[in-house]
This record gives sequence, structure tokens and C-alpha cells, in this order.
Amino acid sequence: MQNLDNDLYLRALRGEKVERTPIWVMRQAGRYLPEYRATRKQAGDFLTLCKTPELACEVTLQPIDRFGLDAAILFSDILTIPDAMGLELELEEGIGPVFNKPIRSKAMIDALAVPDMGSGLGYVMDAVGTIRKALNGRVPLIGFTGSPWTLASYMVEGSGSKEFRRIKGLMFEDPAATHQLLGVVTESVIEYLHAQVEAGVQSLMVFDTWGGMLSTSNYQAFSLAYMQQIVASLKSKHPEVPIVLFTKGGGQWLESMAETGCDGLGLDWTVDLAEARRRVGSKVVLQGNLDPVVMNTSGAQVATEAESVLASYGQHDGSSKGHIFNLGHGIQPFAKPDNMRTLVETVKAKSAAYHL
Amino acid sequence: MQNLDNDLYLRALRGEKVERTPIWVMRQAGRYLPEYRATRKQAGDFLTLCKTPELACEVTLQPIDRFGLDAAILFSDILTIPDAMGLELELEEGIGPVFNKPIRSKAMIDALAVPDMGSGLGYVMDAVGTIRKALNGRVPLIGFTGSPWTLASYMVEGSGSKEFRRIKGLMFEDPAATHQLLGVVTESVIEYLHAQVEAGVQSLMVFDTWGGMLSTSNYQAFSLAYMQQIVASLKSKHPEVPIVLFTKGGGQWLESMAETGCDGLGLDWTVDLAEARRRVGSKVVLQGNLDPVVMNTSGAQVATEAESVLASYGQHDGSSKGHIFNLGHGIQPFAKPDNMRTLVETVKAKSAAYHL
Repeated sequence: MQNLDNDLYLRALRGEKVERTPIWVMRQAGRYLPEYRATRKQAGDFLTLCKTPELACEVTLQPIDRFGLDAAILFSDILTIPDAMGLELELEEGIGPVFNKPIRSKAMIDALAVPDMGSGLGYVMDAVGTIRKALNGRVPLIGFTGSPWTLASYMVEGSGSKEFRRIKGLMFEDPAATHQLLGVVTESVIEYLHAQVEAGVQSLMVFDTWGGMLSTSNYQAFSLAYMQQIVASLKSKHPEVPIVLFTKGGGQWLESMAETGCDGLGLDWTVDLAEARRRVGSKVVLQGNLDPVVMNTSGAQVATEAESVLASYGQHDGSSKGHIFNLGHGIQPFAKPDNMRTLVETVKAKSAAYHL
Repeated sequence: MQNLDNDLYLRALRGEKVERTPIWVMRQAGRYLPEYRATRKQAGDFLTLCKTPELACEVTLQPIDRFGLDAAILFSDILTIPDAMGLELELEEGIGPVFNKPIRSKAMIDALAVPDMGSGLGYVMDAVGTIRKALNGRVPLIGFTGSPWTLASYMVEGSGSKEFRRIKGLMFEDPAATHQLLGVVTESVIEYLHAQVEAGVQSLMVFDTWGGMLSTSNYQAFSLAYMQQIVASLKSKHPEVPIVLFTKGGGQWLESMAETGCDGLGLDWTVDLAEARRRVGSKVVLQGNLDPVVMNTSGAQVATEAESVLASYGQHDGSSKGHIFNLGHGIQPFAKPDNMRTLVETVKAKSAAYHL
């Protein structure tokens, strides 16, 4: 944590007064970058890229080198845990993740165990170590996980889904089995994040991609309650490592998310930042939330919309914990790299006025 | 409007005190019903079913006959207007709607005109007349439209979409052209709904399927503002016809939706009904919002979850406008018809206690 050349992101996440708004971007190491596509081609496929620490390190640093972002995020996939549990992840371009052995019975839930962090997920910790060395203190490294509900959804559906019939069917028909599944996944996530921290990540983010598909009461019981356990466990052992929770489509639930004890909330682009600040801004840092589609348009448009986001959060006058700039979801493959440069330059140049 | 055997739905939408909670279900005439699949097979394809008034009438009445629901909804598609504008709609099972001639240039927007309600959409009004006759006053008939933003999204994307790159790109890069497109679509929607009312529908619903993909400020400017125009025009000419607005994923925006002057808001299942009642329940009737996936589970589960929805809204004690039971989205093809019977029976039997 010490001796960072640029610790703006960590200071902002601790709610400290900072000189300007930090910026990083979800999926900043990704297909919109030609150098990423080259490394990916060299790896052969996405999972090999994730599982080869030197290559994962290479792509993690590409957007840092090119754009001067304020944080790096471990290059990996949210489904490494179920893969290590034996579900056999396959990632095909344009199709998305598929498990060869999805959960199809109570017996399969009974058979699940917390995977060994060394033999099963050691490649992730190796990547963390390699990246920390390569970063050499330039910016902090963010580690991450999918939320238990999101992982369980993929494990039961076997792939992405629109209506989530299988996992919701299980939830409605056998809540006990669903909680059992979420329990072992949560235990695994907790060990995984502890291992990431011990390997060197300096901040954590939990991606709850599918929590927004639930009713309010089911969100509380089947997604948020488990993220709460994760926050509590990490905070008890590593109170110095800030944690950000991000439920896509969770704009209605910010108050209860802020009560978990996390340090920040990721916001998708549907959430009004001024309104979110009013609701929970004195409790947590807010991270977001430019519509990713803007990154596919013109540089002028990117600058205008980025300034709108800054203005929407408004002055850092001590009445709230602060703002970290990001998109409201991952940057898309169609985004123009030059727009990323414009975005970073705009946030760096224009945000200082909001921190006087 | 007069001489209905069952006018519970209309009385509830007017905010009157009623003896129990009315119920109808989005897509109640649909693929989960064997008799629907038979009529659909007879028609050959979905669009022929929509465009043949006798067949559209037949499927509209099927769930009324079978389950005793409190309202019928015109069987049609939300994309009839762009089809009548010349975009050539095709509906393929499992693929969703596709336009052969999507909007791909400013010149194509310039060329759009309000379609003739007679030659272009007369089949819809014929269906309304046929259905009214067949219903013979049993229950009210609901007419509907897609929202301007939803129609424009399909027209520009050419099909359904996950990220809405084209329509959002147009919105960010050429807001004037986007407003021009939304303007002509809104004018068409207004004429279309007036024509439906004149043909005999007794209530209206606007389906804003894709408004929830927008940021709060863009939702206000590009979706809600146009729905507001629709409400204002209909209310000026047909103040007796209640209008329900439904933005899927719009749970954050209920206050501004309620300010349009509409009579009711449709709620998806992510919205907490008690919380929504607290926020806007004294201004508008609330319609919804059981998770449709429940309809694929067991009858016991359906009954339990339906009672939860009733309890969540709570007592009709005069402090709010009231509740109409529905799902939070359309019933799915996998739903069990017997579950629909259980749902209707549960709501009829259990809701009276909330109207004492």
C-alpha cells in the first residue's frame, strides 16, 4: 500500500480530500485496444490469457501505459471460482461464458466444495504478484470477484440468460438448496479475496451483474446478504483494503447496499449521480457512471458527457464521501481508443474545479 | 363504458373503492396456452394472427373464457406503427421482431410520415370492434401501444438489442434527428390510441420496454417527455379513458412518471410495492408485480407469492389510489396454465381482506 507514485484512487476511496477526481474504467484492458487484441491472439483464447500470469500482466498494464489511468484492475474473469470447482468454463467470443458441467441437481450442489486457492486458483495469485511487480508502485491494483448470486446464476443456468428461469426456479422452489449453493460460493469468494489481498491487490470490487434481476426482497436475501458477509469478513482481517460493491440495475437499493459497511458503490448509468449522492453520498464513495455507448461516439461528445457526469456529482465540499469516475458498465469492443484518451484528459483537467 | 358485467378494473383505475383487487396478466393471451398455440398454428404466423380480426379476437378471449380475468387486452404487437410506416416487420419465433427496412439515415427519418390509420392500421381497429362485440360487456378491453422511445429503438436498431448502440449513438450524436424521429412516432402513437378509443377500447396502456436502458436525464428527455405528450393528448379528448404507463426497469423514476397525469403505473418485479405505494401511491394506481418466473413453478408457490404481493401493497385504507394485480412482465411460454388459474383464484379469494 505504501510508496505508490499515484495513490489518488485509494485516498478517494477512503473518503479523504483529494486534488481531483480519480478515473479508471471497467474492462479498461479489453477488445477495444489493438494491443489487447494482439496479446489475446498470441494467447490463443481468453481463458489461456487469464491463466498465463505474464500475459494477464501484459494486458493489465496496457491501458495504464497508454492512458495514464489512476488504477489498474487485475485481468481475469468473474467465473474463475466455478471453473476451479469443476464446472469447466469455456469462453467463446460472441457467445459468452458456458459451463460444460452446470449445476443440474441437489446432488451436484451437495458435491460442491471450496476450491483449493493454490492448485485451483494459484494462477490468479501469480498474476497479482507479477502485475504488482510490473506496476512497480505506479498505481494501485484492484482485485475483484463476481458476487455469489451472479456466480450461482451462471452455475445453474450454465451460461448467460435473459430470464434466469433455472436459478430463479431453484430459488422459488428450493430456497434452502439455493442458500446452500450461495453459502459454499460465498465461502469460496471470501477465501479468494483474502488470497488476492495476500498476493498484493490493494482494493477490491464485487461485481453483482445479475442482482438487478431480483425483486427487492429476494435481492436482500439472495444477493446482498452474501455480499454483506464478504464485506464483513474482509473488513475483519484487512480493514485497510477498500471494497466497492456494484449491482448492475441496483439503483433502487443504494441505501441498503451502503449499509453493508463497504467503502464505495459502483453505479450504472441509469442512476442519477446527484440523487445518489443525496441518498447515500455521506456514507459511501460513489463510482461511475457514464453510459458506455458514449465511448463509441465522437471525442467532443465524450468530453461533453464526461463533464456532465462531473457536474452531476458536483462540488466535493465535505458533505459527501466523494466521487471516482468510471463508466456505468464495461467499455465496449466498439469504443474508440482515442475516446478513452479524451475521457481521461477531460476528467483530469476538469475535475480539479470540483475539489476546491 | 356503460353496461359492463364486470367493471372492477375500470373502477380500480379511477381510484374508486372496490370490493377486491382486480387481476389481468401481461401476455395473458399467449404461447403458454394450448388453445393459443392452436389458433396461432391455424393463422400460420404471428403477424397474420395480429392482422386477422377474427383470429385476434379469438385469442384475446381465450384467457377470459378460461380464467375469468378482470380485463381483456387487445391482441396485437407493439410494432404495428413502424410496420405501417413501411419498415416491414417480420416476427420469427425465438428470434424476435426484425425490420427489413430499419432506419439507417437522416433521409429515412425525413421520409417518415404518420401512417394512415385506415389503410395502414385499420385491421387493429377492426379487431377492437370484433373483440368488443364478442366480449359483449363481460369485462373492459384494454388498448395499447409501444412507447415512442421503444418504437424508435426498434426502428433504428432493426431488431431487439442488448446495448442499443445504434439508437443511443443517434441520441448522443444527433439529438435533433432523434427528437424528430420521436416526434413523428409520437404523433402516430397519439392518432393510433385515439383511433383505438374510437373503435372501442376502454382503457390504455403504454409499454416502455426500453426506457430503462437510459440515464435518468435521457429518460426524461427522450422517453418520458413523449409519453407525457401522449397522456396530455388523450386526456384532453378522452378524459374518461384511464391510461397506465409501464417503463420496464423504471423503478427509480416513479415520481416523475406519476407527474404525467396518467392514472396508473405498471411496475416490474424489481420494485418493492410497499415502497412504491409510499412514494407515489396517493397519486396513481399501481399495477403489478409478481416475478413471471413464479408462474413456471408449483401452484403452492404461486399462491404464496401472490399473497406476498397483496400483503406488500397492503390495506386499501383510503391513503392511496389502489392496486391492480398483474405480473411484473409478460407471462412466459413455459408457464403452466394451471398456475394461472391458481393465481386468479388466489387474488380473488385473498384480496377482499385488503379492501375492508
